[in-house]
Formats: sequence, C-alpha cells, structure tokens
Amino acid sequence: MSTSPIRFGIIGCAEIACKVARAISLSPNATLIAVGSRSIDKARQFISDNALPASTIPLAPYDAVLDHPSVDAVYVPLPTSLHVTWAVAAAKKGKHVLLEKPTALCVEELDVILQACRENRVQFMDSTMWMHHPRTEKMRELITDPTCFGELKTVDSICTFSADEDFLQNDIRVKPDLDALGALGDVGWYCIRSILWANLYQLPKTVVALSGPIKNNAGVLLSCGAQLLWPDGRSATLNCSFLAHLTMQMTVIGTKGALHVPDFITPYEEGKCSFRFVSDAGFTELVTGWDPVPSKHEVITDLPQEARMVQEFARLVKLIKEEGKEPETKWPEISRKTQLVMDAVKKSVDNGFEPVEIIG
Amino acid sequence: MSTSPIRFGIIGCAEIACKVARAISLSPNATLIAVGSRSIDKARQFISDNALPASTIPLAPYDAVLDHPSVDAVYVPLPTSLHVTWAVAAAKKGKHVLLEKPTALCVEELDVILQACRENRVQFMDSTMWMHHPRTEKMRELITDPTCFGELKTVDSICTFSADEDFLQNDIRVKPDLDALGALGDVGWYCIRSILWANLYQLPKTVVALSGPIKNNAGVLLSCGAQLLWPDGRSATLNCSFLAHLTMQMTVIGTKGALHVPDFITPYEEGKCSFRFVSDAGFTELVTGWDPVPSKHEVITDLPQEARMVQEFARLVKLIKEEGKEPETKWPEISRKTQLVMDAVKKSVDNGFEPVEIIG
Repeated sequence: MSTSPIRFGIIGCAEIACKVARAISLSPNATLIAVGSRSIDKARQFISDNALPASTIPLAPYDAVLDHPSVDAVYVPLPTSLHVTWAVAAAKKGKHVLLEKPTALCVEELDVILQACRENRVQFMDSTMWMHHPRTEKMRELITDPTCFGELKTVDSICTFSADEDFLQNDIRVKPDLDALGALGDVGWYCIRSILWANLYQLPKTVVALSGPIKNNAGVLLSCGAQLLWPDGRSATLNCSFLAHLTMQMTVIGTKGALHVPDFITPYEEGKCSFRFVSDAGFTELVTGWDPVPSKHEVITDLPQEARMVQEFARLVKLIKEEGKEPETKWPEISRKTQLVMDAVKKSVDNGFEPVEIIG
Repeated sequence: MSTSPIRFGIIGCAEIACKVARAISLSPNATLIAVGSRSIDKARQFISDNALPASTIPLAPYDAVLDHPSVDAVYVPLPTSLHVTWAVAAAKKGKHVLLEKPTALCVEELDVILQACRENRVQFMDSTMWMHHPRTEKMRELITDPTCFGELKTVDSICTFSADEDFLQNDIRVKPDLDALGALGDVGWYCIRSILWANLYQLPKTVVALSGPIKNNAGVLLSCGAQLLWPDGRSATLNCSFLAHLTMQMTVIGTKGALHVPDFITPYEEGKCSFRFVSDAGFTELVTGWDPVPSKHEVITDLPQEARMVQEFARLVKLIKEEGKEPETKWPEISRKTQLVMDAVKKSVDNGFEPVEIIG
C-alpha cells in the first residue's frame, strides 16, 4: 500500500483553497478526493473553477467531508473563528488536520484543537507554506553555523500589503466575528513565525507591542508592530499591516553574519528564489566599500512550497496510517508557540503597550 | 576667481579624516591645504601616511588651523564632546564648518554651534556622506512620486556592526567623556537621518525607545532601538548596535510602492550601487509569485559620495565667499532635526521607554 496517496478533503471553498487544491494535486503522495462547502453548488463550482478531476466529490455541508470514509485528511481554510469547531470535529472523526493560519483566536482554543488531535492520534500541521521551501532549509544551515553567523542577535520581520477598499470593508480578515486578529493573525503570523524560526523556536521572555497600532471601527487590527526580547539580549521586531504596500522581508543578524530575504512568505517566483547572506564583512581601506560584499544564494525547487508542505504532511499521515507511528509533535509545537506570541502581542496592544511575559 | 578651489583644513587626525582627505582631493572645487593635530608630528605623520601633496601644511595645535589665513573651511572629525568648542571657535574665525556626526552631545550644544555659524555667516554641514550620493536623489524621486509610491506609511532602518574587543574597550565611541551617545550617536545617527529623509524631514511627534538597550559599564549605549510616530499614522523603527554584524539597510514602504536599500550608508562598491523598488505589486493567480517583481535600479557615480559631499559644501562656501550669498540653511536644519530625534531617543531610553514628545 506504500504507493497509495493520502486522500484529502477540503472544508470550505476559500480563495486560498484554490492554491492548496493545486498543491495537493502536485504533491506526489497526496490526492484531492472531496471538496466540502456549505452548499453542494458551491462545492461543484469550486471543482469546476479549479479544473479538478471529474472524480472529485462535491459534498455539503462540511460534516459530509468528515463522514466520508475515504477521506484521510482535511485541509481547513475556514475563518479563524470556526477553526476550533471544525478542526476538533475532524480530529474526532479520525481525519488528519492541515489547518490554515492563524490556527485559532487564542492559545486556549488551539489547545482544544491540539488535544483533540492527540487524543485521536491524528497529525496536526498549520499551513505556513514557506516553512517547507528548500530555501528555508538552506538559510537554516547558514544561520546555525557559528563559524559564518556567530550568535543570533536580532531579527526584523515585516509583512504588509495594501488592502483595497473592498477588502477593508468586506474581507473576513477585518471582521471581528470571523478573523478577529486582523492583520496580526493574517500577516503578523508570518512575522512571528519567522522570528521564532530564526530563534530555533525558543520563546521570547517578553513581548511589547509598538505604539500606534491601527484598528478598524470594529476594533480589528489593520496594522501593528511588536518587539520580542530574550533574556540573553536577543531581540526582534515585527511590523504587520494591511495598509502598506506588499513587503515580506526578514533580516536576521548574528555577531558574525547577516541574512536578508525580501520575499520569505511568497517567493517572487515559484521555481527559483534567492536570499542574501554575508559573513565577516568589514570595509575596504578608507571605508569606501564592503569587504566582502554579501552573496546572493539562489535556490531552485521543482515543487512549489505549498506542494512540499502537503507532501510533508502526507508523509507523516502515511507513517501513522500505514506504519502505526505516532503523530509528529514538532509541527503542533511550533504552531502553539506562534499562537502564544501572537496572543501576547494582542494582549500588549490591548493593555496600552505594557510588556507581556510569555509563559511557555 | 571662480576657478579657485575652496581651501580646507582638517582639525584632528581621526581615521575617518583619511577618507575625507581623499574626498577633498577628489572634489573638483576643493583642496586640502592644512592638517592640524595636537602635535605637529602627528599632523606630519597623517600627511605622509595619506600621501598628501608635499605642499600640505602640518599645523599644531588645532588653533593654528583656525588662525591660518589661507584656510576657508575646516573639516572637524574630533570626538563629539569637543565639537561645540572647536566648531564655535572655527565659526568665530570665519571658517566654514564641515562637522563629523553626531553633531553634538545634545541639541542645546548644537544650537550654540549653529548660532555661531549664523552670526559669523559661515556654512555649516554635517558629514553624513550618503545624503550626497546620486542614488539618494534617485530614490527620493521615486518615493515622492505619488503614482508609483503613494503615501509614505513606514520606514525601517537598521545600522549595526560587530565591534571587536579593542573597539569595545578603547574606541572613543564607547567613552562617556568623548562620544557619550555611543552606538546611538555613531550608527543610530544614520538610521534617524534616513527616517527623516524618507519623511521629507518632517519631525515625528513621538519617540519611544525600544526595550532592551545594552550599555557598557560606563553607561554608554552599545545597542538600542526606537519607534517614531507621526500624527497621521506614519511610523518608523530604528535599530542600531555595535554588537551585531555589519548591516546598513533602509526599507521605506508607501501605500503603492516599497523601496529597499541594503547598503545606504556605505555602498557595497564605490562606483556602482543599487536599490530595489517595487510599485503596485500583487500576486500572480493562485498567489504563487509576485506581479510585478521588484526592479533593481543601478546607479553609477564617478565621484564617491564623500567627494560629492565636499563638492556641495565647497559650492556653498564659494557662493558665500565670492558672490556674497547667505549660508544655505537646509543643511543645519537637517542636522538639528536629526539631533532632536536622537536626543528624544536617548531621553526615552533613560526614562524607561516612556514616550517623548518632540517639540521642533
């Protein structure tokens, strides 16, 4: 049975589901067999709009996907406020859960999801695609090499895009009953993840929101920032916004080297991307230039990062399903840490930028 | 007389003076005629080490430069604590003042310098070289074009270098009696200037230091950060340090475009440099790439930025000297604003990260 692919169902026909539907098709160990929506017509429409194979089963409502005996795993791109309900329901039906980010409205909700996954021995992973790009691995090698990077000192992560008027009025990400975390949950999630990634997932001790966050009339964050601090002097800043032009950059600085990646979340191009790395740079004589100058490192990938994510998730599901392995705990742990820091940023914003201590 | 160059004296043989001595030689309207030090031997040594023309006059002590009748202008690279004394003395002797940054220990001191310059009708300029690079002009065009940049939303500026043990023990920039502003005065100056530059020199209303600054035993800042806020929602962050690998990056984000320059202070190469600019970028269908991707803009310069700085300064001096023009007020105004913000960052660090209101 080792060649049989993991069979996915999608719960919810969000726009992002189009990208993940393609990723499932591209992934060599996965196949999309069912699409669930609130109405069967919407599910059919999604299948047709995305030119999915005729064999793909339209289902409604969402429960029909969870009840389908052939579905091994579900991808859940529903609004964040629905995550706890549907991720828990999926786990209880023994379906493995690939959950869109942000994982939940708060860590208490996420803990309910993770407990359900543990109790039902299903794999949990959040859908943070860039984690799975081979570039991420290459960058990891460099920043963990003390000879070329030294010790990590600071991370600066920015993720913004200019939402149009329609988005700012109608998108689920500005609605308090759907994605109450707004820009922090949507784009801030990536910043926090990148900072934790660079810090080898060691939680900061303290989180302080920056002044000047912008909220909409319903109190949902459209723009905010924060500073993260570790006891040994490491620090990080993040800046996330729906109100500034598309930017997805991460800068990681150590004592001996520095990394800059201008498109860490969605690479400029699908098949080829790059980053800049420099080690032990000083100046030329008379300080008229750098020596050495940073190098551009290119990384090629045959499979887009989202397909690699599906592939990794399906690999873990297969190990559980066919070899009786336990679910991989690394992914839920990383999700939980990201959520914890996000909660702390939110709390600091809400309490007037007072420092919030993180208790892992 | 329009072809006679402006005659410079240097007061103090700091390392940076080597670069500026060369810049004066390269500038078509300037000539270095005298080097002053505390001892005549040091002045002679500087002339010989830097292969300056045999006609360059070694002088000691510093007053000898100010008293020399052929000197039109002085470049002052002395420790910051000596700036007020020597810049004022120079102005009183009718010498135009090109002053190394940071301009002073606080704005009150700088005001004394600027008043002396005004009263004696001499040109004042601080030695922030990157301001004079043609790249800076090109970037300015783009970020002030509302069709491709929209309105400015945020600036993120980082300037760090990893100082070695000798620097951290002995450099004037870690000594409370010489350069008491430490990393903030040295590298933070550039960050603040870049933020003001992007904001067309409009002062922020509020400055809040970030948590976690690092000081040496004498209380001099080795690393710190700050957030700047404008009443209309613009914001900026800066991060400066002697404790992290060389980084000199500025990111400027508007509603419709974004600029990134990785080497804004000292370009990687002297003759050719670049920046990245992107306007109206969205994603490809299915969010698998950017459309458009940012463009790399290359800028070539025959004359290094520090020579262009000397050239501009000498041009203004010439206008005063030969055409009876008044000193250009733009440069001292920019210096003063930079100093004001720097003082506010220092104050916020010292008062436990409380917001400091800027009163221009």
